[in-house]
Formats: sequence, structure tokens, C-alpha cells
Amino acid sequence: MSGFERRWAELEPIGRASSGGYRRFAWSRIDADLREWFAGQAQALGLDLTLDRAGNQWAWWGDPDAAVAAGDPGVASGSHLDSVPDGGAFDGPLGVISALTAIEALQASGFTPSRPIGVVNFVDEEGARFGVACAGSRVITGAMTGERAAGLRDGDGVSLAEALKIAGQDPTILGRDDETLRRIGTFVELHVEQGRALAGDGPQAPVGVASAIWPHGRWRFDFAGEANHAGTTRLADRHDPMLDYARAVLEARDVAERHGAVATFGKVQVVPNGVNAIPSLISAWLDARGPIEAAALDVVRDLTATAERVGATVTEESWTANLAFDPTLRDRLAGLLGGPDGPAPILGTGAGHDAGILAAAGVPTGMLFVRNPTGISHSPAEHADLVDCLAGVEALTTVLRDLAS
Amino acid sequence: MSGFERRWAELEPIGRASSGGYRRFAWSRIDADLREWFAGQAQALGLDLTLDRAGNQWAWWGDPDAAVAAGDPGVASGSHLDSVPDGGAFDGPLGVISALTAIEALQASGFTPSRPIGVVNFVDEEGARFGVACAGSRVITGAMTGERAAGLRDGDGVSLAEALKIAGQDPTILGRDDETLRRIGTFVELHVEQGRALAGDGPQAPVGVASAIWPHGRWRFDFAGEANHAGTTRLADRHDPMLDYARAVLEARDVAERHGAVATFGKVQVVPNGVNAIPSLISAWLDARGPIEAAALDVVRDLTATAERVGATVTEESWTANLAFDPTLRDRLAGLLGGPDGPAPILGTGAGHDAGILAAAGVPTGMLFVRNPTGISHSPAEHADLVDCLAGVEALTTVLRDLAS
Repeated sequence: MSGFERRWAELEPIGRASSGGYRRFAWSRIDADLREWFAGQAQALGLDLTLDRAGNQWAWWGDPDAAVAAGDPGVASGSHLDSVPDGGAFDGPLGVISALTAIEALQASGFTPSRPIGVVNFVDEEGARFGVACAGSRVITGAMTGERAAGLRDGDGVSLAEALKIAGQDPTILGRDDETLRRIGTFVELHVEQGRALAGDGPQAPVGVASAIWPHGRWRFDFAGEANHAGTTRLADRHDPMLDYARAVLEARDVAERHGAVATFGKVQVVPNGVNAIPSLISAWLDARGPIEAAALDVVRDLTATAERVGATVTEESWTANLAFDPTLRDRLAGLLGGPDGPAPILGTGAGHDAGILAAAGVPTGMLFVRNPTGISHSPAEHADLVDCLAGVEALTTVLRDLAS
Repeated sequence: MSGFERRWAELEPIGRASSGGYRRFAWSRIDADLREWFAGQAQALGLDLTLDRAGNQWAWWGDPDAAVAAGDPGVASGSHLDSVPDGGAFDGPLGVISALTAIEALQASGFTPSRPIGVVNFVDEEGARFGVACAGSRVITGAMTGERAAGLRDGDGVSLAEALKIAGQDPTILGRDDETLRRIGTFVELHVEQGRALAGDGPQAPVGVASAIWPHGRWRFDFAGEANHAGTTRLADRHDPMLDYARAVLEARDVAERHGAVATFGKVQVVPNGVNAIPSLISAWLDARGPIEAAALDVVRDLTATAERVGATVTEESWTANLAFDPTLRDRLAGLLGGPDGPAPILGTGAGHDAGILAAAGVPTGMLFVRNPTGISHSPAEHADLVDCLAGVEALTTVLRDLAS
């Protein structure tokens, strides 16, 4: 069994739900198990483990601060271990496992890095619990203030600050972390592709290089109504917000098509959510993205106008503008991973990543994608073939050797 | 403070949510507090407490079995103490408190009943936890088998049988209970009106008498889709069940208007319910009712046809046919409670009640409604004025004295 397969098997049972997917939410008991696993991996590889001001775990091979002092900061890779509800096994963990296995391969080959190599486990990339995606990278880059982060609440009303305390962390440290950012001279995240560009929709290859992340954001729509009895209230006397919500769902699809964007209402909370009660409140979350900023924002503008006409309120929860990865690094990675027919494929993505947050903060950043034969992600059916995963590890090993030489 | 007000004040804090409404769900810890309160009331009034095969609590003044043996069974009143999520204070508890206070008044007046008088606290009238309304009366009348009841599950997957065990009850007793049914010679339930027939839409009066309960039922619609990433999946590649659900919500309003019925999707569960995940499953509950059976069933037939065309499945969870209360008893109650201008008002209702289940099982049954100034129910804003509540107690006292003489 390869190091990759061994690590994969260790993670596989943690947080697995009856759906076959994963429920690995930030600062939960399951997250604690994942973090303990990561710490054990760092120790086994002789890496130094540190936490930053968001609680992200960093495992360094070599002294990152000495490299900063020498004006030649390190190279980092990694991804995240959390999941969406009933998410797949690959989104996140593939990048963490691949980075650890790449370091193991470099060590076994006798390679001595001329600058430190780090592996990160970013906290709460999916935002499944507290609603803001890439929360860990947003906090350390200052894209989200520590104060706002501390006040985020989960579905049970537990704040992030409270969850940190329960997990034995100090919530007062939440905030921008320049000391950590300075250590990252270059960042390369490996991730399963969440589309089929490498599997048939584009040039077929096991590994590709990212060009850009689509502009994307989340907005909460609150449709208020009047709670009443579903059996005794005449249709004419009702103010049922479920109707307003239903119209918004259908309009979202229409305007997304019109603007060349994608828009999704994937999460909804109904108050009181009783069979025989007309709801008093529907909160629904819109995820909107597009190849250009205007496409996504036009969708939100149109939907907001309709929603406000029926008295709903719309709140932006996150927004990430268009993000092109460092073009020099992108071409270097594509060249390194190319073959006799030319450089590796370069592709864009509609998914947000911590790599995008770091890039927006000025860190030279790139991404590698591993082929996904069905394109399915955020689902128990998410999959990548083992042979492609191992090709990803080999590619990341090549990249880290090059960048740390 | 009257006995009514004292009992009201005792119940008021139990299970109150931050919304100001109540979350009193069957066999929960809060329900145990409510049941303990009921048992204490029975003891204080010198009534004999028994449980039937659904766990409904009965408090008898006099020996109900001796009356059965004498061929002259008792008179019972009461209602339920559970609530919908964020329900009001009146729906259910008003009937229980009024019946207890009526017995107190009869005892204080020196009245000696010639047949026993019972007060019942029916379990899980709202069906808020296990999905079937009037579960307690359905079980003892055989309208729902004990086996089906035992297998009902709440939102956390806990079965009713498991919940009973946790609450210290024996789930194997669940089933039709002829011994209990035989004791009920006549049943009269007092309930807050859930409409404005007594408050301005019809003849104004503090108390009215029920004629019939509209045919009503619940159906679960399961819309299946394909879970996928909300950012990376092209619109054309999606099978997003939220769109099918939204169309069903809007169609429900249209067809209900067309058929002269009411139809409501008030409860929905989304899997996985993540902001950036296209759902794999939407389960939504339709509540449909109409003044005649055909109106409600036509709504369900139309919606089912559309839903099945998009691959959804529709499951009937409950159905109660048209139910007219005993006309002799109805006219007797209206006469007793009338004044110089004639009998008390008689009105129909779109809400289901345990009284309707008993009536369908052949028990001579009637209902009294207490005026609701706004008509709002199943909401923290549900209200009845104290003076009308006291008029309700007086009316019920008059009725029980008459029926037990």
C-alpha cells in the first residue's frame, strides 16, 4: 500500500454519514479527529506543527521564519479536511493527503529543500457550519475581520467564538496573521476537479493547472410572512412566504441563463416548518457565480429587485471578485507537468478555494486539478480514479521539488 | 385569581420558545413536564388518572367502568397539550384547562354527577414530531394501527416506539383500545376557534358549536435530484429538485383556488441543504383541505400528476374524510348555550381535532369553539380574550352538568 493509500484509508471512516458522504464540519468533534490525524501526520514526517490566528494547521519541513529572515520564504501546499453536508471524500482531503505524500516522496528520495516546504489544513473551507466559505483563509488574510468571524453563528445559534472555546481554542486570537502570510513565498493547492474539463469536455489529462476562479458569492434572502393555520386561513387572507420563495427559485434559473451565470438555492430554512402552519419566515441562500463579475452580480441584482418588491431582505454573506492565478507560476506549472505534446492543460473553475483567497491577498498562488470522470462534486458520488490521484501526487512532488530547489 | 387563570399561569412557561410561541412536542422532556402537570391537576381534583393504549391521559370523576357495566357510560371533555413548532398558547391547552376548571366549578357547586365525567390530555394531536396529526386518538380508535404508529419516525430518525421507551412507556401496548372507547358515552371538546366566524365574519358570540370538520389530509412529496457542486455544474447539466418543488408550491396555490380548497406546503426538508450544493432530495409536505372531499382530493390529484411527471413520489400520510358531528348533540349544545335570541352559532372548521377522530369512530361527539379575535392560530400571535375564555369555561360547565345529570 502506498503512503497515499494508507492516508486515504485512515481518513475514510472519519465523519462518514449513512448517505456514504461526509459530514465534517468546522470545530465539531469530527473536525477534532481530523485535526488530530493531521497533527499525527506532521509528527510522523518530522514536520513542525503551528496554528495560525484562524486555527489553520501548518506543518513545516524546515524553519519558515529563518527563510523569511533570509528573504527567501517557503513553499506551501495543502487544502482542507472539512466537507459540505454529505459531501464527497475528495474535495479537500485529496489536496492534504497529496501534499503530505509528496513530502514523504521528497524525503525518501533524499531531496534537501533549499527553502522550507509547508502543508496546510485550512479550517472551514466549505462554510458548511458558519455560512462563510474559506473562513480560515479569509481570516488570516484580513478578507474577513476577526470580529465578524467570531460572531458568525451556526444553525443552532452557536457562534464561531463559542465553538472555538468548546474546541479548546482561544477565540480572541482571530484576525489577520501577517506572520503566517510572510512565510508563504508560493502556494500551490491540489484539488479534485469539479467539472469535466479534464475528462472529456476539454483536453483529456489526469492533471491540469488552474487559470482563474470565477467571481462568486453567497446572499441570504429572508422572506417574511404571517404564521397562521394551514387549514383555517382562507387563501385570500394569507401571506405565505413559501410562494415568494418559490418564485425566486424559478426566477434565479431564468436570470442565470440570461446572464450566462449559474445560480442556486441549495439551502433553505423554514420557520416554523410545520405541516399545518403557514410559515412566518423562509431564509434561503443564493449561490451565484459567473465567468465575469457582471454576470454573477446581474443575477443578484435582478433577484434582489424582485425580492424587495415583496418585502424580502437580501444580505450579502460573501463575495469574491474575479481571481486570476499568478500567470508566471501558472505557466511554470503547466510546463513542468507537460509532456512531449506540450504543456499541461490550463482550465478555469467555478469553485472557490483557499488558494483564491491567498492569491487575492497577493500571495503568488497556483492550483493543480486532478481529473474527475463524472464531474460530480459535493456529493457522495464524487470520485477520482486512484491512478489519477497518484498522478496528482507525482505532479505535486515535481512541483514542490522545483519550487523548493 | 380564578382556577382558570391559575392553571393558565402554571402552563404558560412550559415549552415556551424565544419566538414567544411554544415547542411542545410529543414524548419530549417538555411533554413530560406537561403530563406531570396534568397528573397533578387530576390528583388535586380527586380524579382517577389512567393511561390508554396510546398513552393519552384520562382523569375520571367517578368510576367509568362501573358506568359501562350499568350501561350508562360517562361524559368526557379535554383536548391536547402539545403544539406545532412556535404554536400559540391556546390551541389545545384551552380545552384541557377549561375542562379541569369546569369540573372544579361543578364540584364547588355541590353537583353530584349521575354518570362519570372525564378529562383527557390527548398525545400528539398536532403530529409535529411524528408527522401524523391526532396520533393519540387515531391509535385508540384503530384509525391508525399500533404497528404503523410504532414505526413513525421524527426528524432525527427516532421512532415513536423508541421515544415511548425513552419516556418510560411500554411501546408494545400501542393499539386500538376498546376498553377506553366504551367509557366515553359522549365527548365534547372545547377549542379556540381558528378562524373569525365568531369574531365578525359570522354571527358574533364568545362561544359557538361545531357542525363539521372539513375533509383534510397530509401528503409527502419527495423530489429527487442529483447532488452536485453549485459553482461548477452547468445549468444544462443539472437536475435540481428545488425547481420542481418551486413549481409545485405555485401550482398548489393555483389548483386550490380553482377547486375551492386550501393547500399549503409549510414544511420542507432539503438534502444536503448546503449553500454550494445542488440538492439531491427535497421532501415537502402538502396540507390540503376543502369543504367537500372532492375539493381537497382534486388538489392532490392535480399536484400528484405534475409531480409524477418529473419523477417525484407522493405518499399519503393521513386523510380524514368529511366529518359531521352528531346532529342531535350539536343542537342540544346550541340550545343549552343559546340566549333569548336563539341557539348559539353553529360553524364548520378547516382544522382537524381528536373530537373528529372519535366522532368518525362512532362516539357521539360535539365541539365548542371560543372566539378568536384575529382568527390567527398556529402562531405566537394566537389569542383569545380572557372574558371569552371564561365564557367558554362557563359554557363547558353548563354542558357537562347537563350531560352528566
